[in-house]
Amino acid sequence: MQHFDSDYMEGAHPLILEALVRTNMEKTAGYGTDPYCASAREKILAACGVEDGEVHLLIGGTQTNATVIKALLRPYEGVIAATTGHIALHEAGAIEASGHKVLTIPTVDGKISAEAVDEYIKAFRADEAWDHMVWPGMVYVSQPTEYGTLYSKAELEALSEVCHKWEIPLFVDGARLGYALASAESDVTLRDLARLCDVFYIGGTKCGAMFGEAVVIPRKGLIPHFFTTIKQQGALLAKGRMLGIQFDTLFTDDLYINIARQAVSEASRLREAFRAKGYEIYAESPTNQVFVALSAEQEAHLRTLTTFSEWERTADGRLVVRLATSWATRTEDIDELINNL
Amino acid sequence: MQHFDSDYMEGAHPLILEALVRTNMEKTAGYGTDPYCASAREKILAACGVEDGEVHLLIGGTQTNATVIKALLRPYEGVIAATTGHIALHEAGAIEASGHKVLTIPTVDGKISAEAVDEYIKAFRADEAWDHMVWPGMVYVSQPTEYGTLYSKAELEALSEVCHKWEIPLFVDGARLGYALASAESDVTLRDLARLCDVFYIGGTKCGAMFGEAVVIPRKGLIPHFFTTIKQQGALLAKGRMLGIQFDTLFTDDLYINIARQAVSEASRLREAFRAKGYEIYAESPTNQVFVALSAEQEAHLRTLTTFSEWERTADGRLVVRLATSWATRTEDIDELINNL
Amino acid sequence: MQHFDSDYMEGAHPLILEALVRTNMEKTAGYGTDPYCASAREKILAACGVEDGEVHLLIGGTQTNATVIKALLRPYEGVIAATTGHIALHEAGAIEASGHKVLTIPTVDGKISAEAVDEYIKAFRADEAWDHMVWPGMVYVSQPTEYGTLYSKAELEALSEVCHKWEIPLFVDGARLGYALASAESDVTLRDLARLCDVFYIGGTKCGAMFGEAVVIPRKGLIPHFFTTIKQQGALLAKGRMLGIQFDTLFTDDLYINIARQAVSEASRLREAFRAKGYEIYAESPTNQVFVALSAEQEAHLRTLTTFSEWERTADGRLVVRLATSWATRTEDIDELINNL
Amino acid sequence: MQHFDSDYMEGAHPLILEALVRTNMEKTAGYGTDPYCASAREKILAACGVEDGEVHLLIGGTQTNATVIKALLRPYEGVIAATTGHIALHEAGAIEASGHKVLTIPTVDGKISAEAVDEYIKAFRADEAWDHMVWPGMVYVSQPTEYGTLYSKAELEALSEVCHKWEIPLFVDGARLGYALASAESDVTLRDLARLCDVFYIGGTKCGAMFGEAVVIPRKGLIPHFFTTIKQQGALLAKGRMLGIQFDTLFTDDLYINIARQAVSEASRLREAFRAKGYEIYAESPTNQVFVALSAEQEAHLRTLTTFSEWERTADGRLVVRLATSWATRTEDIDELINNL
Repeated sequence: MQHFDSDYMEGAHPLILEALVRTNMEKTAGYGTDPYCASAREKILAACGVEDGEVHLLIGGTQTNATVIKALLRPYEGVIAATTGHIALHEAGAIEASGHKVLTIPTVDGKISAEAVDEYIKAFRADEAWDHMVWPGMVYVSQPTEYGTLYSKAELEALSEVCHKWEIPLFVDGARLGYALASAESDVTLRDLARLCDVFYIGGTKCGAMFGEAVVIPRKGLIPHFFTTIKQQGALLAKGRMLGIQFDTLFTDDLYINIARQAVSEASRLREAFRAKGYEIYAESPTNQVFVALSAEQEAHLRTLTTFSEWERTADGRLVVRLATSWATRTEDIDELINNL
Repeated sequence: MQHFDSDYMEGAHPLILEALVRTNMEKTAGYGTDPYCASAREKILAACGVEDGEVHLLIGGTQTNATVIKALLRPYEGVIAATTGHIALHEAGAIEASGHKVLTIPTVDGKISAEAVDEYIKAFRADEAWDHMVWPGMVYVSQPTEYGTLYSKAELEALSEVCHKWEIPLFVDGARLGYALASAESDVTLRDLARLCDVFYIGGTKCGAMFGEAVVIPRKGLIPHFFTTIKQQGALLAKGRMLGIQFDTLFTDDLYINIARQAVSEASRLREAFRAKGYEIYAESPTNQVFVALSAEQEAHLRTLTTFSEWERTADGRLVVRLATSWATRTEDIDELINNL
Repeated sequence: MQHFDSDYMEGAHPLILEALVRTNMEKTAGYGTDPYCASAREKILAACGVEDGEVHLLIGGTQTNATVIKALLRPYEGVIAATTGHIALHEAGAIEASGHKVLTIPTVDGKISAEAVDEYIKAFRADEAWDHMVWPGMVYVSQPTEYGTLYSKAELEALSEVCHKWEIPLFVDGARLGYALASAESDVTLRDLARLCDVFYIGGTKCGAMFGEAVVIPRKGLIPHFFTTIKQQGALLAKGRMLGIQFDTLFTDDLYINIARQAVSEASRLREAFRAKGYEIYAESPTNQVFVALSAEQEAHLRTLTTFSEWERTADGRLVVRLATSWATRTEDIDELINNL
Repeated sequence: MQHFDSDYMEGAHPLILEALVRTNMEKTAGYGTDPYCASAREKILAACGVEDGEVHLLIGGTQTNATVIKALLRPYEGVIAATTGHIALHEAGAIEASGHKVLTIPTVDGKISAEAVDEYIKAFRADEAWDHMVWPGMVYVSQPTEYGTLYSKAELEALSEVCHKWEIPLFVDGARLGYALASAESDVTLRDLARLCDVFYIGGTKCGAMFGEAVVIPRKGLIPHFFTTIKQQGALLAKGRMLGIQFDTLFTDDLYINIARQAVSEASRLREAFRAKGYEIYAESPTNQVFVALSAEQEAHLRTLTTFSEWERTADGRLVVRLATSWATRTEDIDELINNL
């Protein structure tokens, strides 16, 4: 029995573990004020081409979304997101718990377009009752999306332009960003993100780290006292250097992208194998997630081979499942699964 | 230059690191549903003598306090704590951010007595305007306290009795619990805590783990859907087994208490050395923290020897500093510091 | 130029004003502890057939919704509502500001069916990831709805049954309840509401009062310390007797329903006149609101006759407007408008 | 038996009632967009000497405090107040419910000095752990205070200066402002408040109105989209003109101050009578509140004459009571009480 339930089933990349072991007995100050965090920040900012930006190292994705969004919004504001956005569905109401509404825009592939955002805000401002409603105060998108799809550079540029037009920040959830950056079909780099977003984060948890998300604020000072808000949200790791060491390792010798590339390539092999065997690929996602709509028979067979995530139901009632590869996925495991399909 | 700023300066206990390395490439389900978490829970409950209780593994202390308190209180309720309690001062308003007031009781040594709690609630209920005020809905104490002092079993029993009398839960913050359990002056065991508290937690971050706090709910079902509230608070680790492995290791062969005992003993040696050299011990704390009120001369000298935390000022303006030992403190480092005092 | 923008354009019913004037210089205790509030409560409970229930007098609708919902939900819970529900759209995020998500169910006529609620909850509980999502913790409906439509007794019974089945409370927003009770097409009485709901409120602001909403909790004790939560939400009127006097008057000699009946009848005349003149009636609402989809020409003409609320756009871009009558609408004004249509 | 429990025992000033009656059947737009609100705003701004400022009309004090403070603070900030401040004690945790901590400064007479605020902020910023603590983000004072005492112009100027020095807003709760402005011992005018505060409000509820608090923002634009935040907090009255009419009346021909002057003068007579009869005056308050510390015998006697508020206990256990006059207090009632003392 194999396991492709998610991309956070294994521990940390061996180089990270090695660094943790090597530095274990050192004594450093807490809360991210240590040299490893400083080094990680510097390398991340260099990779993003924004040397004078800010980097904050948090622990997990839901936490990061809630903390950033709370810090960016004023009480009367909400955040625009896709109906399938992680913050809209699978974060247990963390955004609402911080006092803000998620304003959803329908989507078919997990993406929202600049046009849709523009329409939304135009309609809002044209509404006679707009000041009795939640002001759209920022835009949240995920790269890759919850369906593994990607925003192209042109699409992100358009989103960024719309956000600037309406003077609201653009925030990119990069919980799986490595797999986007590593996708052959992506034309978006870290430098593009730093140019186009007001805040984005580089996911560690799902891309090689034991845990950790690196929030990048390309233009310093956007969020005053963010450290204190992070602390308040319970997102400040006491032994902060654990985050520094992990991101420092991931941003040395392009490790972050290199290990993601392998995951994307294995996912691609698996996706094509499904297709070749007559399975219906559900979302055309060029990253590390494979979505398949299963007939009852296919479902029964697949359950004998591997575990996976149950995603949703098709209109005609078939189960859509997700299989995820990761930096740790072994070629031989994919081979075996393909052979048994 | 030595460093005794805090008890979270080093990484994880070597046995924990070893376990993380050994299990690193295994694949397990996320969010604490793996066998390591199951084993850790079982061992913790056994150590507490409440086999049918609940254990939830969270990441850090501020997060744990905010999550537990939010889950226990209703909107009209607040939490009673010492004015020096961690939630009252050093958590950046995390309790208030979840909508609740911290109702403080003055203290000299970081402790609050059952009598003081009883008086507080009696006065509240006798107040003509009580229903315009925040209802005291639970009691929060730290063991050891923020001043390293300890509640005796009799004191905890009295607190527990007062809480039952007023029908509100008693919550013990055990961020440094190991150092309390290991103190020669303590007569409180995990079983006592499980008997007397409604919720308490066993701190990992400051007591041998890389991170992690194990929340124990001795009587199952006190908090419905706590998992979802943990998720909402951003306190649910995706690779949850990292927490399971750490606590499983700490609760194997009494590691948790054994490594704390060494820290307490080194702190004790250091405290007595300070005293012998004419320094004023500020709080009589029998755990791993040493509080010293320094003359200007003493301060200048100590700064040449070690780093420490600045705690507060005495009434006559002298600096009070805290030096903390930990499970990782080496005897030779304490020797050296003592020799140089 | 006439004005049918809303049902809160005039002051209070003359009998209410008279009572306010008559009692003005009396001295009573504050916060609803006076004899007028006691009398109003008694009369309301008698009208609802639940003598031992609770009544709380608040000031406005958004405030009442936020206060009741906050008091009923636990942190991990949200409230099910129609996508067009007032709390979902036009309360500026008040529910989210109290920490809770509004879980919306699509609707065409402003209503949600018991089946839709049942489906929603079933799907939620069947979802593999349910415990990462907001638990549906109560159901909110408006009677009449935001489109002036009505739940029948059978529909409310079905909703109540579904709520009991899933053990969650049913809350009815009755901001315009008078116009529902007074509608010839309604078979729902106050006694039915008291039997079927866990909480509901009887709107004063839009039904004859200067302001005020009477929250009825048919079974006492559902919400502990509700007084304090009301105070916390800023919904407790210092000179509480102003609310008591108003509701006492409205619940004397059936004033509440009698004055609503006239409003419904005038709305009905207006609706039929629109239809007779070839206007498209947009929602078949049997209460005091008239929704009309206008051609450009009709819009231009109507604008010369009266002011109204702009509601939304039809699929083909025409403006839908709402005209509202109230207890204060004069027959001659409706006559004049009809003649000029 | 007489009643001096509070200054909100009667209804509205007769001129207000008259205006409400006179305008009752007019039709106006809702939510404060009517001509009466416009006129009230204009008159208030003229009285404050800030024609281009903003005025927002809310309903009650707790609501106003919570709404203003929430709108002014960012998530990491709290509000400095006296330990006896209304927001710190008697608003059921409304500030905390909006996510913010009340940072208290001890006081003896209900006031906090500029020096104390300066010390507080200096100590905060000097604290090694400041960024783990709640940032002091604004200052709240009441004029008159909860003990009926007054800030002098010099004291307010000093507070304003400290706030500017630290770049945080100064907010004055004027729930009883009329009685301060009308006090012979006060040298503070509305123009002074407009010059020295960033936000303050002119209380209606306790000073002649049926309800209503007029928030003045002397320098326009301080709080973006305040209307929406007011709506979100449930503080927006649908029939907003009821507020406009009341404040328009109060700010015509100096009614607001004239009626307060009578209340202050009666309170002064009563205070001196208590003193002459050997009662201990507890707080030297020159406004409409009289605080008396009673011996057991005095308490027994006073209970036969009038109702009052129980305030607190003296160190030696005697009851401190408060008697409040208002704009509606009759000279003959005070005479009678004095005669019977």
